[in-house]
Amino acid sequence: MTLLILDLLGTFVFALSGAMTGVQKRLDLFGVLVLSFAAGNAGGITRDVLIGTIPPSAINDWKYVAVSVLAGLLVFFWYPLIDRLRSPVLIFDGAGLALFAVNGTQKALNHGLEPVPAALLGMLTGIGGGMLRDILVTEIPVVLRADLYAVAALAGAIVVVLGHGFHFPQAAVTIVGAGCCFGIRIAALRRGWKLPAAHPSEP
Amino acid sequence: MTLLILDLLGTFVFALSGAMTGVQKRLDLFGVLVLSFAAGNAGGITRDVLIGTIPPSAINDWKYVAVSVLAGLLVFFWYPLIDRLRSPVLIFDGAGLALFAVNGTQKALNHGLEPVPAALLGMLTGIGGGMLRDILVTEIPVVLRADLYAVAALAGAIVVVLGHGFHFPQAAVTIVGAGCCFGIRIAALRRGWKLPAAHPSEP
Amino acid sequence: MTLLILDLLGTFVFALSGAMTGVQKRLDLFGVLVLSFAAGNAGGITRDVLIGTIPPSAINDWKYVAVSVLAGLLVFFWYPLIDRLRSPVLIFDGAGLALFAVNGTQKALNHGLEPVPAALLGMLTGIGGGMLRDILVTEIPVVLRADLYAVAALAGAIVVVLGHGFHFPQAAVTIVGAGCCFGIRIAALRRGWKLPAAHPSEP
Repeated sequence: MTLLILDLLGTFVFALSGAMTGVQKRLDLFGVLVLSFAAGNAGGITRDVLIGTIPPSAINDWKYVAVSVLAGLLVFFWYPLIDRLRSPVLIFDGAGLALFAVNGTQKALNHGLEPVPAALLGMLTGIGGGMLRDILVTEIPVVLRADLYAVAALAGAIVVVLGHGFHFPQAAVTIVGAGCCFGIRIAALRRGWKLPAAHPSEP
Repeated sequence: MTLLILDLLGTFVFALSGAMTGVQKRLDLFGVLVLSFAAGNAGGITRDVLIGTIPPSAINDWKYVAVSVLAGLLVFFWYPLIDRLRSPVLIFDGAGLALFAVNGTQKALNHGLEPVPAALLGMLTGIGGGMLRDILVTEIPVVLRADLYAVAALAGAIVVVLGHGFHFPQAAVTIVGAGCCFGIRIAALRRGWKLPAAHPSEP
Repeated sequence: MTLLILDLLGTFVFALSGAMTGVQKRLDLFGVLVLSFAAGNAGGITRDVLIGTIPPSAINDWKYVAVSVLAGLLVFFWYPLIDRLRSPVLIFDGAGLALFAVNGTQKALNHGLEPVPAALLGMLTGIGGGMLRDILVTEIPVVLRADLYAVAALAGAIVVVLGHGFHFPQAAVTIVGAGCCFGIRIAALRRGWKLPAAHPSEP
């Protein structure tokens, strides 16, 4: 029950980010709702397809749809207000990322996947929604370029995989993994940490 | 049998739209055929993957491939002719949308999905092909911006879900749902109906 | 065993092409690794999802991940060196294409698919990675425009399907199919063979 609420909260925050992108691109109301849904649920849906949970829970449970639509409507009608909250939204977004990465890894491990694929799928759960959101508006996904976003997700996923391997209690592992992901992401935002970028013309 | 023919007709019309996009982007012959196939079948394939019909019928039945290739060849070699028929093509396209949305919803309900996901998947069946077509040529999907396209698909899907819930006869529900979708789409085209678009800088 | 090594070699070469695209687009280290993985594995993953091999082997076997990451790191840190090897890379890439197309078709046939879908899925295995690579950096996939790339993959796939239909020995069919694909691709590169491109404004 707690897990479902946290999962829906993560969906809601990611859906907000999708809707804000849609409004910035001047999509119509429906386009904004599609971007909300895509950003909030594409990561989880892809993970579910790849581990064989069919139909994916984000499609089979109306609550995910409702939360995504709610986020889309809020942004569509009160964009300036939400935009002013951008900084708190980034913090919630970090929380959503942490939650999705940790939950996704756990779900993959429960399906019997090996450590490496489980961590990959956990990371994909966290970053997939943002990638589809950006592809749909023909931009190079921001996660491929910035701010340790995916690295934070991967760190959280690795904590879960290690904890699972050493048979630590699942609740503790979840909290530490999520905290690790959230901490890296927020620190990267605050301090402008970045990965090195590629230099094609380096001598 | 009738259903298969209608489904192939819908595939054909959507494939025409994909091929026309490909020709406008000056792709080569193969690229045009890929866009035909993607526009005609991506919606149905995605739905089939999400409900677990593996392999998807659009891949497993050569008739879908044949119809898509036929549409691609027609457009590649007789583009000016097809282009002059653009207005009838839009009407067929509306028919294809209606059919795909209604069929897709029915198929999802037959797989035991709940009403909300079934309607979503029906809508996705209708709009998925056009979305992939536009993404492949790096344009923001037109369905996110215009002309009640997805709303019409959703309306048809909702009619089918409601009819299913009240145990109305399936043939009648199919006809009413498809008519509803087709009617909304054509009326929107004729009268320029649009959803409100987002205004990021609204005071 | 030989097959696995050949498959990993194909993944490696495709991953190189993904990483080079990422470096050219000045992505960060992580973005380059994502493009490596996408280019090397998206075709095989899509095929596996469509034939129901869940989880896909590219995700479930850490060796595919390791090979992709290795290719990404090599390109990220020694781009100028790899860039100078561009011509040998294109030859390896042709070999990877041949292998993926033939292997993918064989895998689909082993899952009981009919000839037409098996050939399609073989071709998709060969070209899927390059398509996702280009979509992620918002370019129209080069395979839709150039150099008989997909045609070569399809030719190899058709050879396998025919050989399977006539019950020829699998090893011979594999070699002939791969040789056919590789030969067409290399000849097209050397001699500038192209498919006709579309002319939207033809009189």
